[in-house]
Amino acid sequence: MLNSITFNEAGLVPAIAQDQTTGRVLMMAWMNAEAVEQTLATGYAHYYSRSRQKQWMKGESSGHVQKVLEIYLDCDGDTLLLKIEQTGPACHTNRASCFYKQQIENDWITIEEPLQ
Amino acid sequence: MLNSITFNEAGLVPAIAQDQTTGRVLMMAWMNAEAVEQTLATGYAHYYSRSRQKQWMKGESSGHVQKVLEIYLDCDGDTLLLKIEQTGPACHTNRASCFYKQQIENDWITIEEPLQ
Repeated sequence: MLNSITFNEAGLVPAIAQDQTTGRVLMMAWMNAEAVEQTLATGYAHYYSRSRQKQWMKGESSGHVQKVLEIYLDCDGDTLLLKIEQTGPACHTNRASCFYKQQIENDWITIEEPLQ
Repeated sequence: MLNSITFNEAGLVPAIAQDQTTGRVLMMAWMNAEAVEQTLATGYAHYYSRSRQKQWMKGESSGHVQKVLEIYLDCDGDTLLLKIEQTGPACHTNRASCFYKQQIENDWITIEEPLQ
């Protein structure tokens, strides 16, 4: 299981979180081995924060948890895809998805406002 | 445009390619600044190969090109999401998506066979 995953030199693997119902890609974050184990053990997405240098459960403070329904590993074993059920907004800016800046010509345009 | 993107210490940014029509996540690869520029200039996805240490156009040898319809940048500017129109299979294993190994209990199960 874990030994099929190729972690990078920092011991991390990128994980893409996709809303199972809408198909929208909500965020990309990093997992260390412990975060993968905790995700499997609890059924809720755990990541590794590179800035805080610790493993955390998504939504542990905000309540915006991610129930993991399916997990996929890519061909070369170095990226995970999680199909999830998202509670509340996925983004810390209070938007549904972290991918809210769209390239329009030579600019990035904010296409989505924070939820109230 | 480019200076809103946070490239990592290796000068790369992860890019997720999602099929615009089906919503399926097809692959995750890396771009350097030149690959981003070439993607914008040509309308076709260009990536940076870490193993070959060069920038390349997806499909340049296989013909399995990715026409880029929309590009999004995430909240902290360090991940790109490309909505694409994929010609042929996205995966080098000849599967539609690179994410063809699903976690089932303690194993990764191949859920998709290569296209003929």
